[in-house]
This record gives sequence, C-alpha cells and structure tokens, in this order.
Amino acid sequence: QRERDEFPTLKNFKGLQFKSSDSTIYMNFRFRMQSRIGAYTIDGNSLGIREFDVRVRRLRMRVDGYLTSPKLSYTIQLAFTRSDQDFDDTGVANIVRDAVIFYNFTPNFYVAFGLNKLPGNRQRVNSSSQLQFADRSIVNAAMNIDRDFGIKAYYQNKIADKVVYHLKGAITTGEGRVANNTDDGLAYTVRGELLPLGAFTDEGDYSEGDLIREQKPKLSFGVGYSKNVRTTRSGGQIGFYLDQPVTLQTYFADAIFKYEGWAYQAEYIKRSTNLALTYDDEGDVKYVFNGQGLNQQLSYLFNNNYELAARYSWLSPNQNIQLYQQEAEIVELGVTKYIHQHRIKMQLNANYQIEQGMFALDNEGNRWGGVFQIELGI
Amino acid sequence: QRERDEFPTLKNFKGLQFKSSDSTIYMNFRFRMQSRIGAYTIDGNSLGIREFDVRVRRLRMRVDGYLTSPKLSYTIQLAFTRSDQDFDDTGVANIVRDAVIFYNFTPNFYVAFGLNKLPGNRQRVNSSSQLQFADRSIVNAAMNIDRDFGIKAYYQNKIADKVVYHLKGAITTGEGRVANNTDDGLAYTVRGELLPLGAFTDEGDYSEGDLIREQKPKLSFGVGYSKNVRTTRSGGQIGFYLDQPVTLQTYFADAIFKYEGWAYQAEYIKRSTNLALTYDDEGDVKYVFNGQGLNQQLSYLFNNNYELAARYSWLSPNQNIQLYQQEAEIVELGVTKYIHQHRIKMQLNANYQIEQGMFALDNEGNRWGGVFQIELGI
Amino acid sequence: QRERDEFPTLKNFKGLQFKSSDSTIYMNFRFRMQSRIGAYTIDGNSLGIREFDVRVRRLRMRVDGYLTSPKLSYTIQLAFTRSDQDFDDTGVANIVRDAVIFYNFTPNFYVAFGLNKLPGNRQRVNSSSQLQFADRSIVNAAMNIDRDFGIKAYYQNKIADKVVYHLKGAITTGEGRVANNTDDGLAYTVRGELLPLGAFTDEGDYSEGDLIREQKPKLSFGVGYSKNVRTTRSGGQIGFYLDQPVTLQTYFADAIFKYEGWAYQAEYIKRSTNLALTYDDEGDVKYVFNGQGLNQQLSYLFNNNYELAARYSWLSPNQNIQLYQQEAEIVELGVTKYIHQHRIKMQLNANYQIEQGMFALDNEGNRWGGVFQIELGI
Repeated sequence: QRERDEFPTLKNFKGLQFKSSDSTIYMNFRFRMQSRIGAYTIDGNSLGIREFDVRVRRLRMRVDGYLTSPKLSYTIQLAFTRSDQDFDDTGVANIVRDAVIFYNFTPNFYVAFGLNKLPGNRQRVNSSSQLQFADRSIVNAAMNIDRDFGIKAYYQNKIADKVVYHLKGAITTGEGRVANNTDDGLAYTVRGELLPLGAFTDEGDYSEGDLIREQKPKLSFGVGYSKNVRTTRSGGQIGFYLDQPVTLQTYFADAIFKYEGWAYQAEYIKRSTNLALTYDDEGDVKYVFNGQGLNQQLSYLFNNNYELAARYSWLSPNQNIQLYQQEAEIVELGVTKYIHQHRIKMQLNANYQIEQGMFALDNEGNRWGGVFQIELGI
Repeated sequence: QRERDEFPTLKNFKGLQFKSSDSTIYMNFRFRMQSRIGAYTIDGNSLGIREFDVRVRRLRMRVDGYLTSPKLSYTIQLAFTRSDQDFDDTGVANIVRDAVIFYNFTPNFYVAFGLNKLPGNRQRVNSSSQLQFADRSIVNAAMNIDRDFGIKAYYQNKIADKVVYHLKGAITTGEGRVANNTDDGLAYTVRGELLPLGAFTDEGDYSEGDLIREQKPKLSFGVGYSKNVRTTRSGGQIGFYLDQPVTLQTYFADAIFKYEGWAYQAEYIKRSTNLALTYDDEGDVKYVFNGQGLNQQLSYLFNNNYELAARYSWLSPNQNIQLYQQEAEIVELGVTKYIHQHRIKMQLNANYQIEQGMFALDNEGNRWGGVFQIELGI
Repeated sequence: QRERDEFPTLKNFKGLQFKSSDSTIYMNFRFRMQSRIGAYTIDGNSLGIREFDVRVRRLRMRVDGYLTSPKLSYTIQLAFTRSDQDFDDTGVANIVRDAVIFYNFTPNFYVAFGLNKLPGNRQRVNSSSQLQFADRSIVNAAMNIDRDFGIKAYYQNKIADKVVYHLKGAITTGEGRVANNTDDGLAYTVRGELLPLGAFTDEGDYSEGDLIREQKPKLSFGVGYSKNVRTTRSGGQIGFYLDQPVTLQTYFADAIFKYEGWAYQAEYIKRSTNLALTYDDEGDVKYVFNGQGLNQQLSYLFNNNYELAARYSWLSPNQNIQLYQQEAEIVELGVTKYIHQHRIKMQLNANYQIEQGMFALDNEGNRWGGVFQIELGI
C-alpha cells in the first residue's frame, strides 16, 4: 500500500510498527524530509540568479493506526517547517496537518471525521511523497482546495466485476487548517472516479510515475466540484485573508494512465468567484484567483529506476484579474532516481516559464528555473 | 493508573512502552486527539447559528518515564493545535505543555522541577482527557491558574490507616508557559485534600464520572489558595497582556463523590485583584476578571457504558468589572459513550446560557449551544 | 560515541533503537530537556534581583539513523521551546533544528546536504547537551555562526599513523534556519583541526570536561574562517533583521586539552563587517557586532563525578559600535554533578560580570549572576 492522504497506511508498512499483544492497538510511525537547492533566473536571456530556493521544504512525522479494531482507524500528521506551517499566509504556526478518525461501516464505505485533505484534484490528493517533480504544478497551486476540517464519506464498488468506481463527498468549514471557528458559510465537495480497466496495482492511481510497471494498462478518470460559501481566504481553504468574504466554485477533471513503466496524467481545473476584487478601508485591492488551467505529465521509468518526465502546465486567469496576474505556461523536464521507491529519491528538474503566451527568451516575465531535491523517509 | 497531571503515568499503561534491558530507562509514549463540531445560536429565541466551533481542539503527544530508577521520573507533553499553543493570547507558539522532572524522596513525598500544572482547582488539574463534558466549566475558564514553571512539592499520608490527606505547594514564575524570564513578583500556591473514606480506586479523584463503579462510597474535599504577585497577564498564568502588573489572589474549595456509577463534584472559586482595570497610553481599558463562581456536575454511568451528566455553572464578576462582563449561568446536559474508558469516547452536549440571572428566552445574551466531540488516544 | 552535531549518533546508543530485520533501516530516538532557575542582580553592590531566568530552556527530540546502508545516514532534530524556536528574533516558529542527510563516500570523507551546524567555533559545534556550564560563553553568543542550510564536506585522516587532522568546508545560504529563499549572497566556511597526540577517546574533542579521564594527554587545535556575503541578519545566520545587508568575516582559533580528569579549552573569535551601523527610513539605528573575544575554561572531574570548572570570558566590541555595546568580562565558577554522563546532570554556576574593564563592585553595569540547571535526557 502506498502512502495516501484519504486513508491511513495500515498495510505492508516496513519500519516502526507497534501492535499490542491483543491486537487492539496498532500504530505505525513514519517521518520524511525533503531538502532542495533551486534557483530562478532574472529573465529568459541570461542565467543570472534572481533568487535561490534553498531549504528544508518538508519535514513531517506521521502516525497511522487503529484502535479497538481496524474498523476504527486514524491518521495524524505533523509538519514542522516554516513553509509547511502555512505561517506566511496566516501568521499562525499550523503544525497539525492531518488529525482524522476513520470508521469503516463496510469494507466499501467509510467516513472520516476531522482534518485531512478534501477530495479535490488528483495531484493535490496525491501525497507530496509520491510526486515525480519537486513541486506540484502551477495549476494546482492556483486552484487546489487543500485540507479542511469536517466530515467526509468515501464509497467504492465494482461494475461487472471489473470496472471500479469511487464516490466521495465532504462538508467542511471552508477556511482550512487555521480555522478555530467559522460562520455558517461552509464548503461542499463531491468527486467521482471511474477505473474502466480495474484497480491500479498497489493504489497506483494516487502515485505519480509507474514504479510498479503495470503489466496491464490501467486508467482512471475523475471529476469533481467544490463550492466554498463565504470563505475569508483568497484560495478558499488556503491563501491570504480577504477584506470581504467570497464564494468560490471549483470544477475538476483529471485522468491518469499507466502501463509498463509509462505514466501519463492530466488535470483541468476551472474556478469562478462571485467577487474577484476585494478592498480594504483604504482602497487597497486584493484579488481572488479565478480562471482555468491544464496540467499534463508524461514519464517513463527505465529498468535502472531512473525516470524521465516531461510536464506542460498552462494557467489562464480570467479577464477580471489580468491586471494582477498574467497567463503563464511552464515547460519542465525531470530526471528522478528512485533509490527506495518514492521514499528515497533524488530529483533534478529544469523548466522554462512563459508569460502571456510569448515563448521568446526576451519576453518580459519569462525565466529559467531548476531544482535539485532529495527526499528521504521511512 | 489514570493519566494525571501531577505525576507521570508509570503503571498499567497499555501501548508503546520501552524499557532498557537493565531497567534503568523506561519510557511510555502516548498521543490523543479531540475533534469537535459545535455551534452557538444567535439568541435564546431562535436556532440560527451565530458561530460554529469546528476543529481539532487538542492534539497532544506525551512521554512519561524514568531514568536510572523510578525515583527520578519525568513527564513531557507537547501540544500542536492552534488553541493549545495559546497563540491567540501570547503571539507565541507555546508547544511545550509539560516538561517536568520528579524526584521521590520517599514513597509519600516528591518534588517537581519544571513546567506542569499548578495544584489549583480540581477540574483544571484533572487531565483534559478525563473530562465528562467537552469543555471545562466557565468558572474554571475565568479563574483557573493553569501551568507554571517552578518548584512544586507533594506530600500524602494517612490518618488512622484510612483517612488520606494530600498537601501540595508551589513557588513559580507566575507568568505561565510563555515566560522566558520574570521579575521578582512570583506566584505562591498551596492546596490540601482530605479523603475521609479512603483513596479512590485507581486515582479516580482526578477523573470525572465513576467509570470504575466504586463499590464503596468515596469522597474528597480540597481547599487551596494562590497568590500571584505582579503578574503581567489578565489571568495570572494565562490570558492577554495587561498594561500594568496586578496581584491576584485566588481561593479554591472543591469536592468529589463517587459511588456505584454515580459521581458528583462541585467547585467554588473566588478571585480578588489589587487593580481591576488597566489602561494603556491612549486610555484604552483592559479588565482583570475578579469575582466568584460555582460549578456542579452530577452523572450516572449505565451498564452499557453510556453516561448521563448534568452541569450547572454560575459565574459572577465583581461590581468593578460589570460594565465589561455580566453574571452568567449555564445549564448543560451531556451523554457520553465510553468505548475504551476515557481514551476513546464520544460526547454530545447541549447547553443553555443565561445572562444576568434572567432565564427568559428573549433575554439579551441568552443562547443555546451544543457540541459533538470524539476523543481518541492511547 | 557522544552526541555531536556534525554526524549522526549511530554507535553505542542506549535507548530507543529500531532496526528492520534486513538491517536496511536503522533509527534511534532521543529526547532531552534542560530546565533552569537563574537570576541576575541589579548591580555589583547589592544582591537585589533584576531579573529571573526561569524556564524550560531546551526541549528537543532527535532522530538519527540510516537508510539502505550506514553510508546514507541522517539526523533530524526538533526544538519546541520558545527560545529554541528563535521566535523573538524572527517572528517565526523555527522548530526544525537539524534536517540533514549524510553520505559517506569513504570512511574518511562524507558530505552533508541540508540544515545543521556550520563548522564554526568549537563551543558552538559542541552539542548543548555536552556543555560544562549552563550556557555557552558571551564570546560565542556574539560571534558564532550557528546553523545554516547548504552543502558541507568533511574529511579526516592521519599523518604518520598518529597525528589526526580534520578538514571541513561549507557553502550555505547565510541566513540561517529561518530562510525560505535567499539572494545570491551566500556564506562560505572552512575549518581545519589538528590533533597532534591522536584522537580523543570517544570523540571527546567535542564534549566539555574530561568525563572519560583520558589516560594519555590529548590535544586539538582548530582554526576557521567564514565569510557571509550580504546577509540580512545582525549575526549572519542569527540575530535580528537589519535594514541594509552586510558582509561579515569571522575568524576562529581554538584548542582543547584533556588529561586524567583535567580539561582546558580556549577559543578566540574575531569578526569584521563592511557596515557597522544600519538605519531604517526614520533614521533609527541598528548595530552589527564586530570586534573580538576570548573564552577560556579549566575543569577537573573528581572521582565522585563532581566537576569543578572555572571560566574567564572577554568580549571587546570595535570602536565603531562602542556607543551601543561595552567591553565585557565574565568570571564564572561552576559545579556539575554528572549522574549519567552529560545526559543526566545537575549544574550550579555563579558569575561576576565586569563592564569596561572596571572590576569594582560599584562600577556601572557590573553584576552578579547565578543559575541552577538540570539536564535530563536519553
């Protein structure tokens, strides 16, 4: 079982496990860290460095387990780095990332109560420990719906003994990890997935790259919708605080395909808002991202566990905010050496960012970027 | 042994224990989380929601153990949620909750050095994992003396081989968990307890509800006093920062009785201050709570481990601050299902808050409230 | 093996160790806490208390281990107290202290990637769990280069089969633990050590006091240099934020000698800056420490594991900042009872601080200080 963010990792874990003698208490303990050296150039024409991105990006500890029986399970995840704390947006040290209890009514149906990821776009639900590039795409960054506190329900079943489907729903506060309390403007999220060729091996539909080398082609489609009523943050569950509440609607469609070391994934996200610009008492404006974007990734894993991956991302803000944010595209190439699956890996990425659809090196806003990252965890 | 906040949990722990082969190092590791969905109405007449209280209320990790021999023991407790960090009052991420070393000079006498709870009112010293309602009372909230750094001494003995008594004393900084340093205005706390019918089974005098179903009646009386000299915070060890230092005196009296599934507890607290109002340079006022209050709780545990509990709390500010805070009463009913003692439980509470002694639904300030909480821990 | 901050503790650890059955995963888990009661007097003539220093000074958790093989090792250290978070200088809860991966190319050569201590002055690289006084010296406080994110390389070898030497180098961000990103003004550090009488037993050159009671005399000399280009913080990797970037150059020379319970250590540090005073828009000034200092410590360990230690520290700011900071000397005496090596110890220190070289009790700025500290850890 891969690490995934919609259910605790209870199976096939190799590391620190504890089980009481009567099997009523089970825990497994994990940690992981990601450290990186990255840089962006000043513009497309020169390789002068505008800024280094050099830091421990993630350092997390995670406990999964069950109590009394596997029907009652839980996931706790703590995050300690500055960027993981979401400190710069909220001014609060948000250390708790997941704190959620799962109850399996049947093997096919469970509910979650607490704080964990919403069933939004696939790349976001994918654990950051299962990515094939150092970062998720700019499309995800602009429109993902992250984590939220509330109640979630998950159902899966099969059609004709082969086609698998998943149905997921959530009612949550809409203000994300930082919220202590909230008004009655909540967030409502639904998502469905269809796997016409059957389940991926080892839950590979939520892991990037075909590390398993699927022997038969596997495919998953997903669609989702989330409405966040009167949120006070620019991205709904994430982002800076706004001066007026806004209601966001976000539409998701994604797919992932894997076969014999090849993996292809795509996701399209579109967001609308009832209010694109908010103003404070002095007339200073803050904008709410709304628009659309598409991310695509293609990769092949060689037999020596080196993977080559290419990514193309396109993000297009709506007209109403183009004074503040331009259309952007990023083309990226990545080489990953998987030393111990996704748990220990080295990644080297290089990318070129294009503003307003002008590929020319001397277009204003274009730039080169690169990052080297090591992930190490158990 | 129950979890208690005046001594490490060293006995009968079921979970993650580690002991070195020569028995000179012992550790036990625990965590617990409390997640809740609560709400308050706009007023007493309608059920429109003024505010939701929806969050991971507590997420804590705790290590208890001893080193070299059980005479030298310790407790460490870390708290990761925003509300547990005491961030909103102090602007500092106070993650350390307990960090204290205990030395047993004799089986009946030990001293503590470090940060942990003061021997204040019973409900506060009671671990938040051993409560029968989702929150402690408004009386506790207004006048408890929380945790503080310093030296504490604990002595217990018996009279006539049956009557148990406890004597406790502490000299501490008076500024609570956040303090890095302090002036010479310290805090002095004493407390005595008398158990005329002998010790409670399994230390049940610091655990709410009679989960043990005491076969013989058990009773404990406690009285205490704390003087906090020139503190800079509104509640002494807790609360917001004041513009002038104040000296607080707090008096405690409490009792708990348990028998065959019934539990009754009461506590009275009274606080006085040398300065009720402090002003900043611009004349803005902050007030220091002073006044009195009484909390009573009665509960019965059914054989299916469902408990019914009722609570009545009364909090009365002194005349000098009634411009800022009104007399309040809360009547509350609770149902708790204990799945694994206090460690795994589900709680449903409903309450009605009364301002200024006017029970009428249309009295200004009156409101309904309710909360559903799940606690899960090892 | 002692705890040291330039390599994980992999050997001879007694406590919580975990190894997978195929020996590809190894972890050891440790914690420690330091709690203290200290005080400073108002002046040299009276013993009236100006301020108490009463708190949990350090509470840390640490995981060392390796993955796949001992060639790929790591250290993670988290720090939870307010002072360890470096919160008061940065406004950020910096919990991550070490997060670093080591790769041993050969037994004599390894590189580190991530966040840990720079190879600066000996007393700073010495773990705070291996000190013989409650605090490091004022010389260290003024000019150490602390921790930084980047790449470090360590090489050691022998000459004539006896004389040991170490060469260390680092390229790092220069802004310390808090940095998320940085401009191209990096920090460059080199350090060399020579041990003419061979290696210390059990790596005792990075542990204060001769707890091992070296049977033969042991000696280590170290010299180092660090250049921090365009840092934005007053101490380079540490300190408050400046209004203009500065470039710091720091020179280190130190030595440690141990023999039969005696230990002597000395370190000299000198710092220069290209800009001693920075101004904000309103003309308010901040100064950058530059100057020199010398710290010396002498100790003897009695057979009952009581140690007597004396320290003399001298810190002299350059002329350009003497309006803001005076020359200072501290004479300090310490008694330490080692209960379980450095892991469990009690320390009592008393000191006298002298401003501007005037020893007289009535000299302005002179004062007495004392601290009692307990360290407890595994």
